[in-house]
Amino acid sequence: MIKARITVTLKNGVLDPQGKAIEHALSGLGFDGVGQVRQGKVFDVELSESDKGKAEADLKAMCDKLLANTVIENYSVTLT
Amino acid sequence: MIKARITVTLKNGVLDPQGKAIEHALSGLGFDGVGQVRQGKVFDVELSESDKGKAEADLKAMCDKLLANTVIENYSVTLT
Repeated sequence: MIKARITVTLKNGVLDPQGKAIEHALSGLGFDGVGQVRQGKVFDVELSESDKGKAEADLKAMCDKLLANTVIENYSVTLT
Repeated sequence: MIKARITVTLKNGVLDPQGKAIEHALSGLGFDGVGQVRQGKVFDVELSESDKGKAEADLKAMCDKLLANTVIENYSVTLT
């Protein structure tokens, strides 16, 4: 069994109102010196595949088809 | 300036309906052999701090106070 972590983040230049809200909330809580905050998603996936190459190809296909919107988001896949 | 990535994931045993929905959607798309899927959140934070120790302590405080619900979620902080 292979375990993988997929991280999906917004591309640079794409507005992130959720991240902005967190920035303001952190300042309000007294954390000074907080610059940009960007929020993304993480998926921990278990695969019954044993071939690492095949697993990685499958995971990339999952991102392209379902997990990420590649117009505005980047993704990275790491096998753990 | 320090850049950090905070990853917040659900603790084991906490139900994750969003992850379950993704499991089913992936099976529906023809991806066989997908086991458990768990969804989490990732925050990319920029700090104007230069002391790494201080930055790490601040980031953990941010998680405890705002970014994670430590009753049901784990978090990890990595400086990038």
